[in-house]
Amino acid sequence: MPKVYLTRIEKFNAAHRLWVDDWSEEKNFEQFGKCANKNWHGHNYTLEVTVSGSPDPVTGFIVDVKKLSKIIHKEVVDHLDHRNLNLDVPFTRDVMPTTENMAIIIWRRLQDKLEGCQLHKIKLEETDKIYAEYYGE
Amino acid sequence: MPKVYLTRIEKFNAAHRLWVDDWSEEKNFEQFGKCANKNWHGHNYTLEVTVSGSPDPVTGFIVDVKKLSKIIHKEVVDHLDHRNLNLDVPFTRDVMPTTENMAIIIWRRLQDKLEGCQLHKIKLEETDKIYAEYYGE
Amino acid sequence: MPKVYLTRIEKFNAAHRLWVDDWSEEKNFEQFGKCANKNWHGHNYTLEVTVSGSPDPVTGFIVDVKKLSKIIHKEVVDHLDHRNLNLDVPFTRDVMPTTENMAIIIWRRLQDKLEGCQLHKIKLEETDKIYAEYYGE
Amino acid sequence: MPKVYLTRIEKFNAAHRLWVDDWSEEKNFEQFGKCANKNWHGHNYTLEVTVSGSPDPVTGFIVDVKKLSKIIHKEVVDHLDHRNLNLDVPFTRDVMPTTENMAIIIWRRLQDKLEGCQLHKIKLEETDKIYAEYYGE
Amino acid sequence: MPKVYLTRIEKFNAAHRLWVDDWSEEKNFEQFGKCANKNWHGHNYTLEVTVSGSPDPVTGFIVDVKKLSKIIHKEVVDHLDHRNLNLDVPFTRDVMPTTENMAIIIWRRLQDKLEGCQLHKIKLEETDKIYAEYYGE
Amino acid sequence: MPKVYLTRIEKFNAAHRLWVDDWSEEKNFEQFGKCANKNWHGHNYTLEVTVSGSPDPVTGFIVDVKKLSKIIHKEVVDHLDHRNLNLDVPFTRDVMPTTENMAIIIWRRLQDKLEGCQLHKIKLEETDKIYAEYYGE
Repeated sequence: MPKVYLTRIEKFNAAHRLWVDDWSEEKNFEQFGKCANKNWHGHNYTLEVTVSGSPDPVTGFIVDVKKLSKIIHKEVVDHLDHRNLNLDVPFTRDVMPTTENMAIIIWRRLQDKLEGCQLHKIKLEETDKIYAEYYGE
Repeated sequence: MPKVYLTRIEKFNAAHRLWVDDWSEEKNFEQFGKCANKNWHGHNYTLEVTVSGSPDPVTGFIVDVKKLSKIIHKEVVDHLDHRNLNLDVPFTRDVMPTTENMAIIIWRRLQDKLEGCQLHKIKLEETDKIYAEYYGE
Repeated sequence: MPKVYLTRIEKFNAAHRLWVDDWSEEKNFEQFGKCANKNWHGHNYTLEVTVSGSPDPVTGFIVDVKKLSKIIHKEVVDHLDHRNLNLDVPFTRDVMPTTENMAIIIWRRLQDKLEGCQLHKIKLEETDKIYAEYYGE
Repeated sequence: MPKVYLTRIEKFNAAHRLWVDDWSEEKNFEQFGKCANKNWHGHNYTLEVTVSGSPDPVTGFIVDVKKLSKIIHKEVVDHLDHRNLNLDVPFTRDVMPTTENMAIIIWRRLQDKLEGCQLHKIKLEETDKIYAEYYGE
Repeated sequence: MPKVYLTRIEKFNAAHRLWVDDWSEEKNFEQFGKCANKNWHGHNYTLEVTVSGSPDPVTGFIVDVKKLSKIIHKEVVDHLDHRNLNLDVPFTRDVMPTTENMAIIIWRRLQDKLEGCQLHKIKLEETDKIYAEYYGE
Repeated sequence: MPKVYLTRIEKFNAAHRLWVDDWSEEKNFEQFGKCANKNWHGHNYTLEVTVSGSPDPVTGFIVDVKKLSKIIHKEVVDHLDHRNLNLDVPFTRDVMPTTENMAIIIWRRLQDKLEGCQLHKIKLEETDKIYAEYYGE
């Protein structure tokens, strides 16, 4: 049975900041630069969810992409879109919302929700100069 | 003397929300949807600044792009990047920060700062589904 | 009152072919090349709808983009997406579905449906090597 | 000898539909949605062919990209471009032409045709929201 | 007769430098920065050629895009692609090859070569941060 | 400790040509086509540097991206940008500057310079039709 990787791309817009409460303002700006601005900044995030599996002999699908898209919205995008990652979202507000950590969090939200295929990779682009990838390792 | 249009592209990331103080929360969400989230959301903005002029017979430039880029940073990007448009920026915080209004504001910041060329257009992309253009009309 | 141009981008996928019934197969292939294939081919179309107007002093909108998007879907995208332009769509099937003609047709579908703003331009991209623009002239 | 992966990108436009003959029209639309439209729809496909090998000590090439491009055209693009995948193409018309299956089929067309390098991956983008990858596993 | 604008996109790669022979090396670097490097640098240029006209009532074309592409190659791309703009090309080597000047030169190469449509605009992108547009004014 | 891959994207413009001194001009053009032009041509290169590591429990970073960007500039971009790869750059001028070889060379420049994370991949795009990837294998 051939193994194929299928990727669905979704987008969301969110506000965040990078800030360690235990640190002084000076130390926060030294570490995080402009990303520490107390009044937040934000991004257009692009999320790529890659799953693996074998195409069904009848439908040719390894997963119904419409269903996959619905799961991604229900578990991830509906919670993050037009939200503040540090304040609004129960599963992100206790974590530093870097691209790296967000990729791990999104993996954990999705890994048990897929049927008939395996979650293979989460790729999250924060800007056109940086992205993170997580394979559940 | 041939007239050429030259465009420089710069990017910035900012937080904002759309909210009318005189309205109820209900009316704000009816009008602005998720954009009214009180804890902000944000975008990667792409700004295109177009100027017009004739190429200098010696240098071939209608404007020195490095100088143009410095002016755009000094007047616009350094003020908006990694900031909250509703709270942090004196020239945006008393205006509803829609893409339309931001394009007008950026035009007004730049129009008197250019030497040897004319400001022709401000184009501001908020997401890959929406952008505004302003010609100073 | 400043005049701003706002653009909304939507996408659809459709099948078509270029073929003149009155011509021989040979003449059709001479004129249209591979685009004359009798079993159709297709494209991912990107549609940009640009409107002009003045930002509302309260909302900062020249048009509510969510409403604009709904109108574009109701009048255009819902009819064209995943359809055959030569067979399925009453308002395209009697016209040669070139990029040029499609831009005109989409303009005519939208021009009377917008409230509080003016339709300024229809831009339709057929591939990453060709697009058409129509201003209602 | 260092092992490098080199990718060549080619494009083609094709029509298809997703439809199971043994199913009712109702069941087909339930499964495939608009993709089941009997009069076809189509896409601009982007194909990435990745090969691996060691750069030749003299030419610096792991493969002559012009030759690789010719092979991709001869074996794949010339057969698929401006065609109907369900009707026109002997090696796709008996398979459900999903992105997943198309990636496998393209792999099989190319795997024995390359000299001096190994086929590593086929990536096929159907729209800007979905793509499939196949490594021959 | 409706007037439509049709754009064809072509690409080429070239080397150039910005340098005034009458100036000292110091003054050249002060004006042109890294672009004055004596051993050249280069770009992937993206050229957009926009023509205007009315769709033919039979073919739906304002111009046969395959013919337009051939003219662009014959008059422009075949001369510039993989060439040095300062040394190799008779119609660019006596001009400072800035984006602005290149747009004017390309306009002049094409304006008399089109039949049945009007040249409307030349857009030339040098990098993803800068482009020039020329309308023959 | 979860393992995440983080990618930073940087750009540079350079001139080069593909040419073997020991070969005749005829043989060079037969092998390298237009890339053998003696007066050089050039490209806008896009460089992706991927590192792997675990997010720091406090900062959420696997690497400080600003520091990573500085290292990439110091070791790679500052040497290559607006330069001639065959003439100007000590670490590229004795190698055929194909995309493949450039990816290997960039890997070797960076592999010992990173602290607290592992270099995972160098991806180098030469045009929008070709790119090379190297994993240090």
